[in-house]
Amino acid sequence: MDNLARNLAQRVNVGDLLTRSAARSPNKTALIDGARRFSFQQFNTWSNRLANGLSSLGYKPGDSLALMSDNCAEFLVTYFACAKLGAVCVPINLFWRDKEIAYVLEHASVKGAIVGHNRLDQFLSGTQSSAAVCDVFVIGDEFEAQRLPSQFLVRTFEALCSDQSEQEPAHLIDDRAPLSYLYTSGTTSAPKGVVGNHLAVYLNSLGTAIDTRMSDRDCVAAFMPMFHTAQLNAICTPAIAVGASICIMKGFETAALLDAIERESLSVLFALPMMYRSLVEEQQARPRGIASLRLAVYAMAVMPEPELRAALDTLGCDFSLMFGQTEMSPVATFFRPEHQLSHPGAVGTPAVNVQVSIMDDEGRLLPQGQMGEIVYRSPQTLTGYLDNEKATEEAFRFGWFHSGDIGHFDADGILWFHDRNKDVIKSGGENISSLEIEKALYEIEPNITEVAVIGLPHERWTEAVTAVVVTRPGANLDEADLLARLRNVISPFKCPKAIVFVNQLPKTATGKIQKAELRKEFKKFFDNSGSTPER
Amino acid sequence: MDNLARNLAQRVNVGDLLTRSAARSPNKTALIDGARRFSFQQFNTWSNRLANGLSSLGYKPGDSLALMSDNCAEFLVTYFACAKLGAVCVPINLFWRDKEIAYVLEHASVKGAIVGHNRLDQFLSGTQSSAAVCDVFVIGDEFEAQRLPSQFLVRTFEALCSDQSEQEPAHLIDDRAPLSYLYTSGTTSAPKGVVGNHLAVYLNSLGTAIDTRMSDRDCVAAFMPMFHTAQLNAICTPAIAVGASICIMKGFETAALLDAIERESLSVLFALPMMYRSLVEEQQARPRGIASLRLAVYAMAVMPEPELRAALDTLGCDFSLMFGQTEMSPVATFFRPEHQLSHPGAVGTPAVNVQVSIMDDEGRLLPQGQMGEIVYRSPQTLTGYLDNEKATEEAFRFGWFHSGDIGHFDADGILWFHDRNKDVIKSGGENISSLEIEKALYEIEPNITEVAVIGLPHERWTEAVTAVVVTRPGANLDEADLLARLRNVISPFKCPKAIVFVNQLPKTATGKIQKAELRKEFKKFFDNSGSTPER
Repeated sequence: MDNLARNLAQRVNVGDLLTRSAARSPNKTALIDGARRFSFQQFNTWSNRLANGLSSLGYKPGDSLALMSDNCAEFLVTYFACAKLGAVCVPINLFWRDKEIAYVLEHASVKGAIVGHNRLDQFLSGTQSSAAVCDVFVIGDEFEAQRLPSQFLVRTFEALCSDQSEQEPAHLIDDRAPLSYLYTSGTTSAPKGVVGNHLAVYLNSLGTAIDTRMSDRDCVAAFMPMFHTAQLNAICTPAIAVGASICIMKGFETAALLDAIERESLSVLFALPMMYRSLVEEQQARPRGIASLRLAVYAMAVMPEPELRAALDTLGCDFSLMFGQTEMSPVATFFRPEHQLSHPGAVGTPAVNVQVSIMDDEGRLLPQGQMGEIVYRSPQTLTGYLDNEKATEEAFRFGWFHSGDIGHFDADGILWFHDRNKDVIKSGGENISSLEIEKALYEIEPNITEVAVIGLPHERWTEAVTAVVVTRPGANLDEADLLARLRNVISPFKCPKAIVFVNQLPKTATGKIQKAELRKEFKKFFDNSGSTPER
Repeated sequence: MDNLARNLAQRVNVGDLLTRSAARSPNKTALIDGARRFSFQQFNTWSNRLANGLSSLGYKPGDSLALMSDNCAEFLVTYFACAKLGAVCVPINLFWRDKEIAYVLEHASVKGAIVGHNRLDQFLSGTQSSAAVCDVFVIGDEFEAQRLPSQFLVRTFEALCSDQSEQEPAHLIDDRAPLSYLYTSGTTSAPKGVVGNHLAVYLNSLGTAIDTRMSDRDCVAAFMPMFHTAQLNAICTPAIAVGASICIMKGFETAALLDAIERESLSVLFALPMMYRSLVEEQQARPRGIASLRLAVYAMAVMPEPELRAALDTLGCDFSLMFGQTEMSPVATFFRPEHQLSHPGAVGTPAVNVQVSIMDDEGRLLPQGQMGEIVYRSPQTLTGYLDNEKATEEAFRFGWFHSGDIGHFDADGILWFHDRNKDVIKSGGENISSLEIEKALYEIEPNITEVAVIGLPHERWTEAVTAVVVTRPGANLDEADLLARLRNVISPFKCPKAIVFVNQLPKTATGKIQKAELRKEFKKFFDNSGSTPER
């Protein structure tokens, strides 16, 4: 038996999700990108042409291709072309600096890159030190080709696809062949290349479709960055798998998004909590017809209960938090609509493909109620970290994937997230969850809009619990008053030793608060702290 | 890295579907079996105990275990225990005769068997010639152990599970390790052992849950035989994957089923078209409260439009046909609720994991509208036929799985099934679809309750189109009159050369009409047909 023939007939491949949706509903709208609309058939044949174009230039299964672009149809076309060719897609974070871009291009042995015309300067300044990249394909024709260094083969994305066959590429690709190298935005060490494979992303697509009840009746919004696994794999690939439409936007703009919900009858949103806050205000001020909305997914942070209630009232749809990480392809748990108000602040119950447990440092699984590291078993786990078997072995010790997150299961079997492993505050011999204190601060004071609780070096406490707070404009909060009120709701030993008011918190491209940055900034806050009076 | 540890953390295993549903909703009812009810946690720990019990007797991954039982909780416990142990489950068709049982036990190298107490005689008389089987585990304690031949180690199912650890079994099992050998009820040749694997059944479970919108709010009925892939893998495993409840019944009884729908708020049924006919009559005569019903799945045969309309009116739920075969694990297409009335008689659009095409005998894919063999690409395809590489290569020629079914896609992309490959009637140089004629007969004459159109040897026509018909009791139909009316709606060359009235049609255990039996029975019908006048 011909191995390729058997592989094509039996394999699991993310590209096949698109092939099948195109066969099932060829004329249905797959992608809305500004004034451009593409049916599933157009999307699929475009991906085929790109894959065949790359193939004609010598790209083979296993080769890696960088992708640096704002959200656009071509982004998804490239992702699916890579899947069909067996090439590895390496999305470049648009917030990276030269050094990070250079590191990733080198580390991932990137051979060519597909780059948005408006990102070309940024890309080129990152490639200085990378000898490997030889081909640059530019999305859009608004660039000056002569400006490009001569070592590159440069052509437009359009030229790469044109005159190519629309036939399905036929390459032998294993179920667990690499699909992408996604670099984690490591706040402390060098970024690690998360090797995502076809099976993992495929299963996440089906599982997420089940858990969000996504169907071909949905039209999902895509305004969060596609270079991030959440937008790409937790929203876009499930939508493509079930034949839902995707409305692509370059970023979050409150009024434009509400207009789009009304115009395109969007049914599923994926956004950060702070974005929902702004949608609520805008919708209250200038109401649109948004009855098509059925599910608002959020991520990265829990929504404070009053905000959630306001959002439920004003947007009139279900809310659900997706919790996970790049290494999980990415969804590990869903905080489901039915639990939002009964268990505010939790991160939910396991996704259909994921087993979740709590583990202590010696590899023992802990019973319900006890706090420990959140660990996973799932075919959605990464293959491993690229060229880093040590980190991979460490991550899979004791037969579970170690998330690096700390949490516990409550009596209802619902998971609560406490902190990143390294961010647990060890103060006065106690382990303190920053999340608990953050939640308490939100509850006692509605004028607090954002808060990060961190541990800072302290002579007496080892780490001193410290709250860094952003308030509503005009609000004038008093540190001593806040602390006094806080002591009524949490144990005194958990109470911050100080509250610092700032204008904004440092964040990653995807809105995650960078506690490591805060810890660096305020490192010396408690210097001479031997003399700080105990509160 | 320890291979077992990595396997446990990353693998695809059907047993893990149960493990995860038990973790997500431990106290939810998983199985209702008469007066017995089992939560997901109970179901899971029971399966663990059985797997560990088998393990303690030396059963290892790859060993095969027969399962011969009427529908009961123990059936599903055994299936999931096998999955967790890596053992291969070999369900025994309860309608098989001694010879077939012996053949399968031998061919599948069955080491032990789990047998319902009421099926023990039947099983033992089938084991006479099989030296391999050494262990018999009996479900229920109502049997006389001393009656059993001494070569068997005999114990009860209960004894096998008791005192066993409830811990999750930890065996290294590949994604595509065999899960089951399901023997096709070959009407012509020796049964073939379809090797089903974990990945295929797992993906079918998720895909079918998506396509049927199954969720943890559902309670599904299971009265069709569990030894058949349709009940087992198209209904039960998807239900277990998403945390839906299963109401187990030993078989189809009209009144009892309607009572159960009312009592247990059943939401999903899986039945044959003739069963829905009987449910409609009973519900019209003695209405129950069946508002919980949301989806009625049928299989094996399309529903005549008038019956479908009556069923939609009376049962008040969506209808959907599942089309597939054991080799597809098993669902290949869904005839979706929204297409039922606009395309009556079709078999639907592809399932989420399946690509469907039409192929000619030389391996060329045919365009929309043309008739040919229905072929599939999907990770749901069987691994192969057990110990039959020739049949496997034949089935996967040209890089597609060959269904043996004939069909075409219409202009709306909807698949129509014409016939089993071998059952296409070749009459007077034309290929004739028996289905088209069967449909026409149902349409022109409501007193026809069942019909099978076959080709019989004929001197002039090579094969003569022949309709074998069952009528409503008391109806007195005239052959010449029927043929005259038929000629008004189908091409004359397709018209049957004869209509034969019978009391019943031969069927397989799962209700499929055995056309091969009919062809055998009426082989000499047109003997001396040289003198039969042309109609």
